[in-house]
Amino acid sequence: MAQIKNESITPRDVDFAKWYTEICRKAELMDYTSMKGFIIYRPYGFAIWENIKKYLDEKFKETGHENVYLPMVIKESLFNKEKEHVEGFAPETLIVTIGGKDKLDDPLIVRPTSEVLFCEHYAKIINSYRDLPKLYNQWCSVVRYEKTTRPFLRGSEFLWQEGHTMHRTKEEAKEEAIKMLNIYDKLGKDVLAIPFIKGQKTEKEKFAGALETYTIEALMHDGQSLQAGTTHFFGDSFARAFDISFLDKDGTRKHPHQSSWGVSTRLIGAIIMVHGDDNGLVLPPPVAPIQVVIVPIRADIDENVRATSKTIYENLKSKGLRVKLDDDTSRSPGWKFAEYEMKGVPIRLEIGPRDLKENKLLMATRYNDEKKFISLDDIDNIPSILDDITKKMYDKAKKFLEEHIHFAKTLEQFEEMIKNGGYVAIPYCGEEACEKKMKELYQVTARAIPFDQKDEEGICPICGKKTHRIVYYARAY
Amino acid sequence: MAQIKNESITPRDVDFAKWYTEICRKAELMDYTSMKGFIIYRPYGFAIWENIKKYLDEKFKETGHENVYLPMVIKESLFNKEKEHVEGFAPETLIVTIGGKDKLDDPLIVRPTSEVLFCEHYAKIINSYRDLPKLYNQWCSVVRYEKTTRPFLRGSEFLWQEGHTMHRTKEEAKEEAIKMLNIYDKLGKDVLAIPFIKGQKTEKEKFAGALETYTIEALMHDGQSLQAGTTHFFGDSFARAFDISFLDKDGTRKHPHQSSWGVSTRLIGAIIMVHGDDNGLVLPPPVAPIQVVIVPIRADIDENVRATSKTIYENLKSKGLRVKLDDDTSRSPGWKFAEYEMKGVPIRLEIGPRDLKENKLLMATRYNDEKKFISLDDIDNIPSILDDITKKMYDKAKKFLEEHIHFAKTLEQFEEMIKNGGYVAIPYCGEEACEKKMKELYQVTARAIPFDQKDEEGICPICGKKTHRIVYYARAY
Repeated sequence: MAQIKNESITPRDVDFAKWYTEICRKAELMDYTSMKGFIIYRPYGFAIWENIKKYLDEKFKETGHENVYLPMVIKESLFNKEKEHVEGFAPETLIVTIGGKDKLDDPLIVRPTSEVLFCEHYAKIINSYRDLPKLYNQWCSVVRYEKTTRPFLRGSEFLWQEGHTMHRTKEEAKEEAIKMLNIYDKLGKDVLAIPFIKGQKTEKEKFAGALETYTIEALMHDGQSLQAGTTHFFGDSFARAFDISFLDKDGTRKHPHQSSWGVSTRLIGAIIMVHGDDNGLVLPPPVAPIQVVIVPIRADIDENVRATSKTIYENLKSKGLRVKLDDDTSRSPGWKFAEYEMKGVPIRLEIGPRDLKENKLLMATRYNDEKKFISLDDIDNIPSILDDITKKMYDKAKKFLEEHIHFAKTLEQFEEMIKNGGYVAIPYCGEEACEKKMKELYQVTARAIPFDQKDEEGICPICGKKTHRIVYYARAY
Repeated sequence: MAQIKNESITPRDVDFAKWYTEICRKAELMDYTSMKGFIIYRPYGFAIWENIKKYLDEKFKETGHENVYLPMVIKESLFNKEKEHVEGFAPETLIVTIGGKDKLDDPLIVRPTSEVLFCEHYAKIINSYRDLPKLYNQWCSVVRYEKTTRPFLRGSEFLWQEGHTMHRTKEEAKEEAIKMLNIYDKLGKDVLAIPFIKGQKTEKEKFAGALETYTIEALMHDGQSLQAGTTHFFGDSFARAFDISFLDKDGTRKHPHQSSWGVSTRLIGAIIMVHGDDNGLVLPPPVAPIQVVIVPIRADIDENVRATSKTIYENLKSKGLRVKLDDDTSRSPGWKFAEYEMKGVPIRLEIGPRDLKENKLLMATRYNDEKKFISLDDIDNIPSILDDITKKMYDKAKKFLEEHIHFAKTLEQFEEMIKNGGYVAIPYCGEEACEKKMKELYQVTARAIPFDQKDEEGICPICGKKTHRIVYYARAY
């Protein structure tokens, strides 16, 4: 096992899909099981999710949200209450038909999402305007039984959070959907070092049952877009279907307005495909399970190396960093370097006897593969170096994103531009038929009607209708 | 909704089961769904679990454990690999037979526990003694489809953590099972304010597939025992069944030895039934979602009350306490007192205009229903008052436990003693037949062979065999 660590991986520009899967396995993020599409989140992969979760959970609580837990199964008869919603999910559901050896009268669907469960509960606990808003969130796993699966990107089961909120007014519910999208965007900048395109989904691409869906889209290294998170504004359609109403201040009974929002372990896939390189994973410091690894050189024959490594370890740990001292003498330094490069550890400190005599040590930063000597006193700067790495990684990804956004006026331009991947914007007429045509012609989907756009007149290159909006198309995961 | 808060609950000595269910509902810990046995963990109930989880997760990590996440379903063919294990769980499983509208060739069992999944994975990643120990833990929910269910105590789905570890030697695996039992015991003392009886389960009561099961048992107010957590030592039986082996230091291939351990949201039930009283829930401060509630009196007409309440709130918050300032002027103070009593908030501070003039305020402590005046300067002592409350609650529960442990030498003595509830010890011969007889005669089960016992000769009152051990019997949840 241990001896195969040094083997290289497929270069990402040779076979991106293969490169991706190899990183997932070799960085020990996940493992397959004997059940198709169901993976194991190994400690190193799960710890990344825990770091994302910790950040978001704090942000959710700061903004008044409360965590709850609802059942992992939904009665089929309950699930069928909101028609559009059912149609969206039915093809991907797992259905429990046997319970305690008996056939169930009303089969149970393993939750693909929990709107209907929240609604059943809200119908019982919402009665007055004073009970609003209800701002609930749930951390759990959901099941979408998929034919084609890829680790973290598309699986039969994945981990996520799902927020489900109820509001007195339509405006408040919509505002909530935007507010949460902005929290996701901030997660991208502060934690994942990933810039997102923020925008609204087209009618065709929006969530089953929603009035409006907002999205954050991220650009992967291969030029494809990944939907990294969505928030939805539902209006009162579920509230009507589930008979949820409240007595408003004015004494009349009304239906509350609803939002939902979620991000999932898909974000791990985004981290891999935005930052990874031919040596493996490259992790932004805020999510890295190990932020700094210390590798003593010749520790077996040098007491100073042992003692200094330990001191530095304690120092960094006391600063609140996630640091590892790898003093396993049965592995060579070279083996360790390859191992921590594969695992994307942001900073590696090599502590050797000769350098120590000159009061210095070698610091290797993973994101740019640079090595330089620092003095022992520089150890205190490591927290700010880590912050700087996050910023630099974000800037690099942002530059890549900006270089891959183009604007086409004609189909000829579109065809030329989309060849290089990334997003190509065209004027957006709003017709579903035009979206279908685009997909047929170029295997692209409408990713987002960006929030950030100029009010300029354009013409849909398919139907010729005039419009003032644009929409981003891309090939997508 | 809001107006029904003040209604009283059934006294616990009149109908303990009814009292329990009413607290679950009225303290807003949970709600029912339309699916039998599947409950909703409402924000207040879920926050208690989050506090337990936070404590344990830290302790697990400090002792070298890593979190992972494995699938929520298990192929039937995989589940059937360990025979004893299957027989223990088969009657309670939910089985998925349809996936994506098609009938599945190999149905999926919704996990009742994850031993077999861990074993499938361990078979792949354990190859050398250097890969050991593997110390994994998972936070998730599991399903046991039950006919008779009660909130938190017995449900079709519950939240828990399950540790699954692999070790080089039998001794290490056994040591791990004891170590984790001691962590649970410490959770009881430090966090839940619940004293446990620690001991080993009899052959009849041990976990399906385990060689030895250790348990923490807690005594409820009605004199019944609740199994609050268990740890198991498996030996290498699963390792053999799943073909898990490693090359040991001596160059020979061996099977590793296994442990597993878990506690669940059942602990919320224990908290209710150990500490609760006729006014509702009584929460130990370490798990309380709100540790201190501040109720301003006449805040609408008194600026000093408003300002002081706010200052105290900020002060306590800055000390890291979970504090709530309830300045809702549409509710009467009386309504609020009843509300926070029902919810078991450890400390309530009443801040009124007259008292403030004398530089004092009223502090009500929930666990003993005492009210006393404290000076504004005493606010700084609240963290230590909270610590003291936890200790006092623990001592009270320990006294109750000790008063309910008796030792019987004959069946006549046993019959007399068990009438008052609690534990009655008898000499333990080790025969399953005697345990069955005890159950038949007195509706009791063997709860634990306590670790803490004297080496004294006794005689099993059923079969007359001589023995040096005792076992605790009790009626149990």
